[in-house]
Amino acid sequence: MKKVAVLLAPGFEEGEAIIIIDILRRLNIQVDMLSCNDALAVTSYHAIMVTADALLRDVASQTWDAVVLPGGPQGSQFLSRDEQVLDFVRRHDEQGKLICPICSAAARVLGGNALLKGRRYACSGDLWQNVGDGTWVDAPVVEDGNLISGKGFGLVFDFAFTVAARLLGDEAPAREHAEHIYYPWPR
Amino acid sequence: MKKVAVLLAPGFEEGEAIIIIDILRRLNIQVDMLSCNDALAVTSYHAIMVTADALLRDVASQTWDAVVLPGGPQGSQFLSRDEQVLDFVRRHDEQGKLICPICSAAARVLGGNALLKGRRYACSGDLWQNVGDGTWVDAPVVEDGNLISGKGFGLVFDFAFTVAARLLGDEAPAREHAEHIYYPWPR
Repeated sequence: MKKVAVLLAPGFEEGEAIIIIDILRRLNIQVDMLSCNDALAVTSYHAIMVTADALLRDVASQTWDAVVLPGGPQGSQFLSRDEQVLDFVRRHDEQGKLICPICSAAARVLGGNALLKGRRYACSGDLWQNVGDGTWVDAPVVEDGNLISGKGFGLVFDFAFTVAARLLGDEAPAREHAEHIYYPWPR
Repeated sequence: MKKVAVLLAPGFEEGEAIIIIDILRRLNIQVDMLSCNDALAVTSYHAIMVTADALLRDVASQTWDAVVLPGGPQGSQFLSRDEQVLDFVRRHDEQGKLICPICSAAARVLGGNALLKGRRYACSGDLWQNVGDGTWVDAPVVEDGNLISGKGFGLVFDFAFTVAARLLGDEAPAREHAEHIYYPWPR
């Protein structure tokens, strides 16, 4: 079974994180919600307290098939400044694991820390203007090697189904499930 | 400020609940997450523990402008069998407040308890076949008086923006925010 780490920081965009977790678990992919803070309970962008499965610091040496970085203004800033998070992302990237930022995360967490490495990426708003490394693409989801990035919140289903399809090595289960929940994917 | 009660039961569809809460709060509508169980912590369909703002039993006599009923197989069954939930929904409906079920909730919670009252509604799957009261409509979102129902999970943004627009009495803020998050609403 493929397994995915979703990094939860204070102020994470709850809709992005929860939809991704929900879709991946529906497709029988193991998801571990990792708190990047000092407690399992993490409070989201719009004040929803969610309980993570583990603290990142307790499992940081383990390896997942994909690392998901949700957005949220405060959440992605937290991730972009946390050395343990950056070490975790850097190690997974070097090992060729999927790196999956959505919304502000590609520009802030990767772009802000020399982790885009010239790759093409999607990102919300005009944050791409502050990024010297990497090439911003105006698309719902952009794939470049092991980097899968999503433009934003309203496109989170597209992002989640794409990540699931790549992890499973097959688009069929994701297509079938998209139809099951009445979501038009792929567009 | 308009205020909305979202009823959380064990097994609630987390993506549906969280997207609705997120979109409503983004549009400056007050949302109270009410646990229908004995504790504030409620575990969702796909095993995410979310902390509610209050227990329904502690605030059941208060009145909200809208009541949201998320789906999820176990969640909507729980809601459909809980007398306190049914009294709460019935009272709000009689007062003309918005009643907003999504996914399985319209058929299970309302249809299963003579609360559809002949109205048109949307619902997931083929649950409508078990409902004698009300008229099932195959559409993303169906509005009939104070009943706003959503077909399912992949259409939750459409549902959330519709509920927000009706509460605000104006579609403009919802349209602008949909564009802001890159969601094509209205379709």
